[in-house]
Amino acid sequence: MEKNTTMIPLTTDVPNKKETVCIFGTGDFARSLGHKMMQCGYSIVFGSRGAQTSSLIPEGATVLSHAEAAETSAVIILAVHRTHYSFLENLREVLRGKVLVDVSNNLKINQYPESNAEYLAQLLPGSKVVKAFNTVSAWALQSGALDASRQVFVCGDDSKSKEKVMEIVRSLGLTPLDKGSLLAATEIENYPLQLFPMWKYPIYLSLVLSAFIFFYCVVRDVVYTYAKKQVDRSFFIAISIPNRVCPAVALILLALVYLPGIFAAVLQLYRGTKYRRFPDWLDKWMLCRKQLGLVALAYAFLHVLYTLVIPIRGYVRWRWSSYVIAQVLNNKTEPLNNERAWMSDSYVSLGILGFFLFVLLGITSLPSVSNSVNWREFRFVQSYLGYLTLVLCTAHTLVYGGKRFLNADTYPWCLPSVYILSLIIPCIVLAMKFFLIFPCIDRPLTDIRQGWERTPKGISQINSSHCRSAV
Amino acid sequence: MEKNTTMIPLTTDVPNKKETVCIFGTGDFARSLGHKMMQCGYSIVFGSRGAQTSSLIPEGATVLSHAEAAETSAVIILAVHRTHYSFLENLREVLRGKVLVDVSNNLKINQYPESNAEYLAQLLPGSKVVKAFNTVSAWALQSGALDASRQVFVCGDDSKSKEKVMEIVRSLGLTPLDKGSLLAATEIENYPLQLFPMWKYPIYLSLVLSAFIFFYCVVRDVVYTYAKKQVDRSFFIAISIPNRVCPAVALILLALVYLPGIFAAVLQLYRGTKYRRFPDWLDKWMLCRKQLGLVALAYAFLHVLYTLVIPIRGYVRWRWSSYVIAQVLNNKTEPLNNERAWMSDSYVSLGILGFFLFVLLGITSLPSVSNSVNWREFRFVQSYLGYLTLVLCTAHTLVYGGKRFLNADTYPWCLPSVYILSLIIPCIVLAMKFFLIFPCIDRPLTDIRQGWERTPKGISQINSSHCRSAV
Amino acid sequence: MEKNTTMIPLTTDVPNKKETVCIFGTGDFARSLGHKMMQCGYSIVFGSRGAQTSSLIPEGATVLSHAEAAETSAVIILAVHRTHYSFLENLREVLRGKVLVDVSNNLKINQYPESNAEYLAQLLPGSKVVKAFNTVSAWALQSGALDASRQVFVCGDDSKSKEKVMEIVRSLGLTPLDKGSLLAATEIENYPLQLFPMWKYPIYLSLVLSAFIFFYCVVRDVVYTYAKKQVDRSFFIAISIPNRVCPAVALILLALVYLPGIFAAVLQLYRGTKYRRFPDWLDKWMLCRKQLGLVALAYAFLHVLYTLVIPIRGYVRWRWSSYVIAQVLNNKTEPLNNERAWMSDSYVSLGILGFFLFVLLGITSLPSVSNSVNWREFRFVQSYLGYLTLVLCTAHTLVYGGKRFLNADTYPWCLPSVYILSLIIPCIVLAMKFFLIFPCIDRPLTDIRQGWERTPKGISQINSSHCRSAV
Repeated sequence: MEKNTTMIPLTTDVPNKKETVCIFGTGDFARSLGHKMMQCGYSIVFGSRGAQTSSLIPEGATVLSHAEAAETSAVIILAVHRTHYSFLENLREVLRGKVLVDVSNNLKINQYPESNAEYLAQLLPGSKVVKAFNTVSAWALQSGALDASRQVFVCGDDSKSKEKVMEIVRSLGLTPLDKGSLLAATEIENYPLQLFPMWKYPIYLSLVLSAFIFFYCVVRDVVYTYAKKQVDRSFFIAISIPNRVCPAVALILLALVYLPGIFAAVLQLYRGTKYRRFPDWLDKWMLCRKQLGLVALAYAFLHVLYTLVIPIRGYVRWRWSSYVIAQVLNNKTEPLNNERAWMSDSYVSLGILGFFLFVLLGITSLPSVSNSVNWREFRFVQSYLGYLTLVLCTAHTLVYGGKRFLNADTYPWCLPSVYILSLIIPCIVLAMKFFLIFPCIDRPLTDIRQGWERTPKGISQINSSHCRSAV
Repeated sequence: MEKNTTMIPLTTDVPNKKETVCIFGTGDFARSLGHKMMQCGYSIVFGSRGAQTSSLIPEGATVLSHAEAAETSAVIILAVHRTHYSFLENLREVLRGKVLVDVSNNLKINQYPESNAEYLAQLLPGSKVVKAFNTVSAWALQSGALDASRQVFVCGDDSKSKEKVMEIVRSLGLTPLDKGSLLAATEIENYPLQLFPMWKYPIYLSLVLSAFIFFYCVVRDVVYTYAKKQVDRSFFIAISIPNRVCPAVALILLALVYLPGIFAAVLQLYRGTKYRRFPDWLDKWMLCRKQLGLVALAYAFLHVLYTLVIPIRGYVRWRWSSYVIAQVLNNKTEPLNNERAWMSDSYVSLGILGFFLFVLLGITSLPSVSNSVNWREFRFVQSYLGYLTLVLCTAHTLVYGGKRFLNADTYPWCLPSVYILSLIIPCIVLAMKFFLIFPCIDRPLTDIRQGWERTPKGISQINSSHCRSAV
Repeated sequence: MEKNTTMIPLTTDVPNKKETVCIFGTGDFARSLGHKMMQCGYSIVFGSRGAQTSSLIPEGATVLSHAEAAETSAVIILAVHRTHYSFLENLREVLRGKVLVDVSNNLKINQYPESNAEYLAQLLPGSKVVKAFNTVSAWALQSGALDASRQVFVCGDDSKSKEKVMEIVRSLGLTPLDKGSLLAATEIENYPLQLFPMWKYPIYLSLVLSAFIFFYCVVRDVVYTYAKKQVDRSFFIAISIPNRVCPAVALILLALVYLPGIFAAVLQLYRGTKYRRFPDWLDKWMLCRKQLGLVALAYAFLHVLYTLVIPIRGYVRWRWSSYVIAQVLNNKTEPLNNERAWMSDSYVSLGILGFFLFVLLGITSLPSVSNSVNWREFRFVQSYLGYLTLVLCTAHTLVYGGKRFLNADTYPWCLPSVYILSLIIPCIVLAMKFFLIFPCIDRPLTDIRQGWERTPKGISQINSSHCRSAV
C-alpha cells in the first residue's frame, strides 16, 4: 500500500481523487481500462505474474504481484481469460469480501455450461462477483470514440458491490444498466457476440422470398421470351426484374407483420382467455414484427427508386421512341384513353400515399421517436396507420393489375404474374381483419384483452372490477 | 408476515433478494406488474377481498386479505379503480406511514375535478401517496416488448417515498422521471390519454388548407375544362391536383413556422421588453412550430414523389407523343429555347436544394439528434438554414411561375393559379424578416432579448451588467 | 434567515419543499433560473448590490444584499460576469465551505488563460466551486421549450458538492453529466460557443472540392462548347453540372472515409505495434470519418434527386423529341442495342443499390440507433456494409464510363471527364484494402490489433495470454 501511494503522482492536477482500483492482468484490455480510469482520477494498481513495470503499462500505474495488488483495493477488476481463473484459488483469502469485476468475453455464444462470472463466483464463494464492462472494447476506451453503445450491462448478487461498480462505470462517462442478479451474466456475456439476433429470421425470409421470385421472373420474362420469341431480354435482370421482386417482397412482408396479430386474436377468441401462452413460433413471430416491417420498408424504398429511374433507362427510351415512330409511319395518332389515364394515375397515386405512410411508420420506430410517444399514440401509429398502409399498398397492386387479372391466356407457360402471387397473403390478412372489426367479434376480444375470461376460475370474476380500465 | 415468508420460495435461484411489495387488486394490471416484479427478485403479496389464490395469480405470490397484505410491506401498490378507493378508509390505521403507489388511469382527460392520486391523499392523509406506473401497459409488462416509452412518470409530496418508488421502477428496467409534487398527478394521469396534443392544430390546419386548395383546383382545372372545352380531365384528381395541393400547403406551412417569430419580434420591439407575456394564441403558435415544420416536410416529400413520377404517367406519355407526332406531321422542328431551358432547369434546381435543406432540418429535429447539439448549433440550423429553406422554396415557386404571373387573361373564371396564392404568406414573411435584419432594428431587438428594457423599472438597469452575455 | 422565511410564501401549494438556494445577480439568466427553480419547489433568495425587489424578480423570491443572501443557503449560484468576480473577495468569509455554482459563459473560445470556474476557485480557495448550467439558455428556461440539449455538464473538485448540484439539475427536469474535476471547466465553457467543430473540416473539404469540380465542368462543358461550337449551354449550370459535381464529391468523400483506416493499418504493420500514437493529422482524420461519410451521403442524396428529375427537364425533352423527329425524317428506326441496354440498366441498378446501402449506413449513425447496437453489429454495418457501398458506388461510376474511358480524343482541351478523376481515390482505397485482406497480411494485423507486438519489451509477452480475446 505504501509502495502504491508513493509511486502514484498525487499532484493537484488530479484533485478529484478517487479510490485505488486494482486490475488483474496486463493485456490489451487491462491496460486500456487502466489508462482510461487513471484519466478519470483513479489510482490503478496492476496485478501481474511478473510484477515488473513494462513500457506498455500506462505511466503512473503500479505493477505488483497479484496478492500484493489485491490488498491495495476493495475492487479488483479481473481482465484475465476464463481459462486462467484457476490461479485465483490461491488468492482466496486475500480476495475474501472484495468486489471482483468479471470483464471477460467468450469466443462463441454459450461456449461454457455456465457463464464466466458464475464460474468465478463458484470458485471464490467469499468474494462478491460483479459482471461488467464486457460490452466495451479496448479500442473504444483508447480512442474515446464511443460511437456504438455507451451502455455497460452490470449484474451481480450483492447490491452494494453492484452499486460500487456502477459508480465506476458512471465516472468513466459510460451508462451502467442494472440487469439484476448474476443469473443475467450468461445473457450479458452472449450480448457482444450477437449479430442482429432479432433481424435474423426477417432477413433470411426476405432473402429466400427474393431469390424465389427472382428466378420465377427470370423464367417467366427472360427464358420464356427467348424460347418463344427468340428475343434476348437478359438485361431485364438489372432493373425490370428487381423492380418486380422488390414490391412483391415488400407487400408480402408487410402483410406478414399483421398476420400474427390476427392469429393471436383468433386464438384468444377460441380459447376465451389471454392468459394462456401462445405457441412458441407465434411468440417469436410477434416479437420480430418491427424488424419484418423495416425490412419491408427497405424493399419498398428500393421499389420506389427502381420505378423512378424507369424513364432514364436506355431500353425504355428506345421502346418509346419506336412506339412514336410507328404511330407516325402508320400516319395515325391514338386518342387519349381516359380510362387508362385514370388507371395509370390512380395506381401511382395509391403507391405514393402507401409509401409515404410506410416511411412515417419507419420514422416512428426509430428508438428516440418511439421513446417520446405514449402507448396510445404508439398504437395509433403502428396499428391504424399500419393497416392503412397495407390497404393502400394492396390497392396499389390491385389497380396496377387492372383488367389483366382475368385474361389468363396471357400467362406464359401458365405462370401468373408476380403481382398476383404477392396479393394472396395481403388479401387474406385484410379479409380476416375485416371480420375481426365487426362489433360482435370485436367486443368479446376487447374484453378478453382486458383480462376477462370466458370460463372464469377462482376469484378472477370477483376481482374483474378491480382491473385497470386502460391498457 | 410468517405466512408470507413460508409461502414464497426463497431458493438460491433468486439470490438478489429484494424487499416484499404488496399489490392491492388482482386485476390484469396487478397480476402483470406482480409477475414482472417477481421476475426482478421482489416478493409479491396480493391484497384481495377474496384472499384466495387463483390460477391467474403468478406462481409464488401470496394472496392475503387487504389488511394482512398491507402489513407485510412498506410499499403498497394500489391497482384498483378510483371508484373503489372508499374501502381504503377502513384500512387507514394499517396504511399509516406507508408508501401508497397510485397506478390508476381514467377513461377521459380531466374526468374528475382532482387527480386520482390527490383524491387518495385526501382519503388517507397519514399515508405517503406516490403516483407512478400509469403510463405502462399490462401488455407491455407481460410481453417485455417495451417499444413505446420506457419512461415512468413519478410524482409525490414525500421525497423519500418517491425515491423508493423510483428505485423499484429502475429495478424493473424502466426509466423513472421525477415530475415533482403530487400537483403533477393530473398531468401524469392525462398523459396516456393524449393523442398527439401538439400535432392537433398543425394537422387540422393542413387538412383544412388541403381541402380548400383541392376543391379550388377541381373547379379550376376539371370543372372549368369540362364546362368550356367539353374535355374530361377528371383523372387530374389522382396526381395532377395533389401535386398542386402538396407544394402549396408545404410552402404556406413553412412560412407559418417563421411568422410567429416575426410577430414576437415586432411585439417585443413595440413593447420594449421581453418580460411581458405574449398573447395566448402567439404562445401556442410558437410552441407548435416544430410540428408545423414537420407537417410541411411531409407535404414537401409527397410533392417530390408526385413530381418524380410525372414521366411515368400514361397521360404525360400520351401528351408528349402527340406533341412529337404533331411536329413531325407539320414537318417543322422547334429549336431549343435557351431561356425556357434556363427557367425549367433553375426552378427544378432551386426546388431540389430547398427540399434537401428541408430534409436536413427534419433530421435535426429528431429527438436523438437535437439532443446532441448545443444551443448555438440548434439555432444555426433551425433559424439560418430554416430561412434559407424558405427563401429557396419561395424562389422555386416564383421561378416556376416565370412570366405567367403577368398575363391575367389566362386565369379561368378569374381564378389565379394556386402557386400564386401560396406565395402570399411566404413573401410577407420574407419581406418582414428583411426589415428585421436591418442593423437599426436588429440591434435594439438583440438588446431586448438579452434582458434590456426600454423603460427600466427598479433595479434592472443597475444589474444589467450582471446579465449573462450569451443566450 | 428569519427575514427569508417570513417573506417566502410557504403555502401547501408547494408541499414538496426543497431547500433554499441563493442566486447572486439579478440579470436575465439569474431571474430565469430562479423562476424555474421556484416552480420546482425551491425557495430562492437573490443576492444583489441594490437589494431592492424589482418588478422583474419572480414573485415570491427575496432580494437581499450579497452577504445576507449568502447566509441563507449552502448553495450559491453565481450568475454574474467573470469581470465582476472581484467583489466576491470581500465575501470570502461568508462563502467559506459553501458550494459556489459558476454558470458563466464567455464570448469567445479560450478568451481567458484559465476557465472562469478555475479563476473563481483561485479567488475563493475556501469555497467549493462547481461548474454547471452554462449550456442552458435563459430562453429555454423561460419557455420550457428545451428542444436542444437537456444535458447539463457538471464538473468540480469536491464530489459531494457536485452531487448536490447534480441533484438540483435533475429536479429541474434536466440531465446532469458528470465531466470530472474542475479541469474540465475549460472544455465545458467552450462547448456552447462551438459550431459543429467536428463538421468543420469535412464541410470545408467538400466545399473546396465542389468549387473546383464546378469550375472544371464549367470550363469543360460550357466554355469549351461555346468556344468551339458557338453553342450556348450556360443553363447546364443549373442541373447538368451540379449533377456531375455531386456524385464526384460523394464518391471521393466516401473513399476518404476509408483511406485513414488503410493508412493506420499500414502504419501498424510497419511499426509492428498498436501502442504508438498515430500522427496528429491521422488521428483527427480518423475521428471525423463519421462526419465525412454523412456529408458524402448528403451529396449522394442530391445526386439522386438531380438524376431523377432528368426526364422532367425542358432541355432533355427537347433533345429527345429532336432525336425522334430526326429518325422519322430520315425514315429509319434504330434497333435496340442489347449491349447498351445492359450497360444503361446495370449502372443505374448499381447506383440504386449503392445509394440504398449508403442510406442504411446513415440511419445506423443516428445517435439513438447506434446506441442500441453492440460493437460487433456496429462494426459489421460500418465496416463491411461501408466497403460494400464503396465497391457498389465505384462500380456504378466505372460502368457509367463504360467504353468511353479509352478514346481520349473525345477529351475537350485534354480535360478528362469528372467521373474519371473521381475514380482515382476510390480505386486506390479498394486496391489497398484488397491487399490488406490477404491472409498473410490480415493475420499479423489482427494480432497487432489485439495487443501483440513484433518487438516485445518487458513483460508484454508473458502476459499476452492474459489479454482479452475479443476486441
